[in-house]
Amino acid sequence: MTTQKIKEGNYVLLYLGRRKTYLVKAEKGKTFHTHRGFIEFDDLIGKEYGSTVLSNLRTEFTVLKPLLRDYIMKSVRKTQIIYPKDIALIVMFSGIGPGSRIVEAGTGTGALTTALAYYVKPDGRVYSYEMREEFTKNAEKNLKRADLKDFVELKNKDVTVGIDESDVDAVILDLAIPWVVVPHAYTALRPCGTIVSFSPTIDQVVKTVEALKENSFVDNETSECLLRRMQIERGKTRPQTLMTGHTGYITFARKATKSES
Amino acid sequence: MTTQKIKEGNYVLLYLGRRKTYLVKAEKGKTFHTHRGFIEFDDLIGKEYGSTVLSNLRTEFTVLKPLLRDYIMKSVRKTQIIYPKDIALIVMFSGIGPGSRIVEAGTGTGALTTALAYYVKPDGRVYSYEMREEFTKNAEKNLKRADLKDFVELKNKDVTVGIDESDVDAVILDLAIPWVVVPHAYTALRPCGTIVSFSPTIDQVVKTVEALKENSFVDNETSECLLRRMQIERGKTRPQTLMTGHTGYITFARKATKSES
Amino acid sequence: MTTQKIKEGNYVLLYLGRRKTYLVKAEKGKTFHTHRGFIEFDDLIGKEYGSTVLSNLRTEFTVLKPLLRDYIMKSVRKTQIIYPKDIALIVMFSGIGPGSRIVEAGTGTGALTTALAYYVKPDGRVYSYEMREEFTKNAEKNLKRADLKDFVELKNKDVTVGIDESDVDAVILDLAIPWVVVPHAYTALRPCGTIVSFSPTIDQVVKTVEALKENSFVDNETSECLLRRMQIERGKTRPQTLMTGHTGYITFARKATKSES
Amino acid sequence: MTTQKIKEGNYVLLYLGRRKTYLVKAEKGKTFHTHRGFIEFDDLIGKEYGSTVLSNLRTEFTVLKPLLRDYIMKSVRKTQIIYPKDIALIVMFSGIGPGSRIVEAGTGTGALTTALAYYVKPDGRVYSYEMREEFTKNAEKNLKRADLKDFVELKNKDVTVGIDESDVDAVILDLAIPWVVVPHAYTALRPCGTIVSFSPTIDQVVKTVEALKENSFVDNETSECLLRRMQIERGKTRPQTLMTGHTGYITFARKATKSES
Repeated sequence: MTTQKIKEGNYVLLYLGRRKTYLVKAEKGKTFHTHRGFIEFDDLIGKEYGSTVLSNLRTEFTVLKPLLRDYIMKSVRKTQIIYPKDIALIVMFSGIGPGSRIVEAGTGTGALTTALAYYVKPDGRVYSYEMREEFTKNAEKNLKRADLKDFVELKNKDVTVGIDESDVDAVILDLAIPWVVVPHAYTALRPCGTIVSFSPTIDQVVKTVEALKENSFVDNETSECLLRRMQIERGKTRPQTLMTGHTGYITFARKATKSES
Repeated sequence: MTTQKIKEGNYVLLYLGRRKTYLVKAEKGKTFHTHRGFIEFDDLIGKEYGSTVLSNLRTEFTVLKPLLRDYIMKSVRKTQIIYPKDIALIVMFSGIGPGSRIVEAGTGTGALTTALAYYVKPDGRVYSYEMREEFTKNAEKNLKRADLKDFVELKNKDVTVGIDESDVDAVILDLAIPWVVVPHAYTALRPCGTIVSFSPTIDQVVKTVEALKENSFVDNETSECLLRRMQIERGKTRPQTLMTGHTGYITFARKATKSES
Repeated sequence: MTTQKIKEGNYVLLYLGRRKTYLVKAEKGKTFHTHRGFIEFDDLIGKEYGSTVLSNLRTEFTVLKPLLRDYIMKSVRKTQIIYPKDIALIVMFSGIGPGSRIVEAGTGTGALTTALAYYVKPDGRVYSYEMREEFTKNAEKNLKRADLKDFVELKNKDVTVGIDESDVDAVILDLAIPWVVVPHAYTALRPCGTIVSFSPTIDQVVKTVEALKENSFVDNETSECLLRRMQIERGKTRPQTLMTGHTGYITFARKATKSES
Repeated sequence: MTTQKIKEGNYVLLYLGRRKTYLVKAEKGKTFHTHRGFIEFDDLIGKEYGSTVLSNLRTEFTVLKPLLRDYIMKSVRKTQIIYPKDIALIVMFSGIGPGSRIVEAGTGTGALTTALAYYVKPDGRVYSYEMREEFTKNAEKNLKRADLKDFVELKNKDVTVGIDESDVDAVILDLAIPWVVVPHAYTALRPCGTIVSFSPTIDQVVKTVEALKENSFVDNETSECLLRRMQIERGKTRPQTLMTGHTGYITFARKATKSES
């Protein structure tokens, strides 16, 4: 069995409990401070992933190898992120996978970009549009941390004036005014390519669906995902009291060929 | 722009409306019968994806290139399938992606197997266990149709007696008695590897979570996904009347190293 | 203990199972036909509520005394009814109870009217507006069946031109264009009186909330109720597969005094 | 039009916004302090309900007449309350109304008791069992505040050893071990009387449903109510971000006559 040892420079997820995790870079000679004492990275480097480490206050942390979801949730944020539940459905609905070429707009924090890059690697590519330069720079950091920068082209451009790429497999929108980009998406997509738009308000969805219908997209569907967490314990099992009631609506459609009438 | 022409032997999705689609193989000289007339495949072969074709009753069908979701929903079924909304979350939670090595049990209809293969290709591999031979054979057909058979090893074996593979990235369970497989999953997984189990009943979940805790898994979480479809039309926008109220619970955990006490 | 015997002319609920119940009038010399044989009412009259009766095919039916919910669900329908889950919240939010004076519009099938009458009796009163005479007549039948006609004044009038009553405790709306009635409701209500409107679409809700804000209503709230049924059985407990995903939104507000600026 | 003036000793709801309301007693010569300044009750007494009053910091408060829901939500709490959404369904399912005789256990904070009293007045009665004397005393205060004490008999007794009343219309349970009370409920209920039990965990529900089946109750149904609040504003309409994901399950059944076999 190949063992996976933690190396200098690796990102690790220090795990204390489901709601107490820290995504940190293991750097020689440095320490990480928590409310339960500090951890010396030197104690950690060379250890196997999945093992435990003690803080100076004798609290045990499990050292986990970060998953895609950890990189998403721990993104350095400039704005709100799309949550893993929604990203999962956007990926599924869009039909993308290894090798896909995708246009994304806007980049925002880069959480969705990270996930898209993760699923299209090693041969696919994400072209991600964002007007605000500080957002692009921040997203770049998040992508580098997850070692996914190579699969993304970050573009400091206004997607509402046009998309440079053509023949792409999917266009993924998380914008205030997605309906403006729908005609550009149509042009950029290959035949039967997909568009998926994520919007928090009903009004955005209505305008987007109208634009999709006007632009020869078919098979439109809008849905939302309610994720409900359970507290599982024999004799005490029940759904959790608090729940996220709304993040956004996911609108999907496929490009059909314009009839020549 | 590269055009994508429909070739003899390709699977196409004939689209009449959101709830009226047909996944069929384009075969020379053959016809496909619908309640809106028949379609001659010869009219279709050589056309571009996304274009339309007329039935003999002059009904227009759009010819779409099938997406992963279409292959899942149109699986030739021997038993119930896991729906795309749940598959999407299973994939996200498990952390798998291109290159991952995964154990799945049981194969069932092969809908989840299809999705797992889709996301781990081209370098990853799915080892899928199933006791009932006719299920394995049926799943093989579904995988071939989606052109994903090469990434899957279908195993006609009882997973409750053990898992052959080791050092895998994830173990995905959709079984009546998942808790029995938890110790085998622990052995088969690499450190920090993930386990994701899908079960319709609360009782299955409670037993599985107990087994996870007994077997040094950490970061357990159980959740369920309610997908709610919207009817979007200016002046008439509302959630749809009917909804799937329950499919199953998704339980996730990560393998931590057993403490040597 | 007072026993409750079934008398000639009483309505009874013949119960075969949760989804197999019949609301029927016990009439001497008559029979009731079901897919499990017929029942002679003479076998039933004089029996105690809660006891069982056999059909000619030896199927056992339990003879239940109908509850409010049974009268609602078994309304003779001219149009869609509001479901008990929504009626319950409308009643709670409106603050009505025994003695309240209420305006309702439109009467529709009379299911909501039946419930309102049930909760305001014996001293309150429901004034129910409806334009379509055949609806009013049908609602009258439903109210008589539930023995609640005495507490309701059915009015064959167009509520959009005005409300006759004044100083009422609550105005309950289930109309296609509730926003038109909001100013009339304001006039008809006593200070701090409540308005509750039930609408299936978002667009109706937005217009109604705008009208409420323009008309010195305060404390607006719109919500919807998702009722999820459980299948409870040791070892097989789970939410039910099918669920009603949407009925309508409930909008509530209270009348404040118009500022004299 | 009868005007409703605020009198000395009345409870009023000072309204600043949907999440900023205060239920207070108008007492001559006294003041009420808020984070937006203090209000002199002398300014308030003699005013009409629905009008506004200014704090010393010139903040405008609307003076509302409290509704049942306000009394529930503003209960002086010794323990958790049942929320209005659940109370509404408990009342609807139980079939109670003006004149009903009800057994409730346990009294707890008295929020549910308040609602039950509200709906059975003026001729009905609520017999409410509670072991902990300080809870009974606290509930009495809540009932007096809502002017509903006359319709309730608070009993400092252990309901698990038996129910004193007989021939009651409904038994409403909000207890840690409802299943223990099911046989007593059967004895206390009139034929076709109803039982409604509210429990947060699945395990409680399973045991209660088993007890109901063993005790000749029929028409069992367990459900839960998810209330989702909307943010209504033209161009920004959407469900609210945060939501209560779980309060409890509501189990309903009706008493059938025991067969004499």
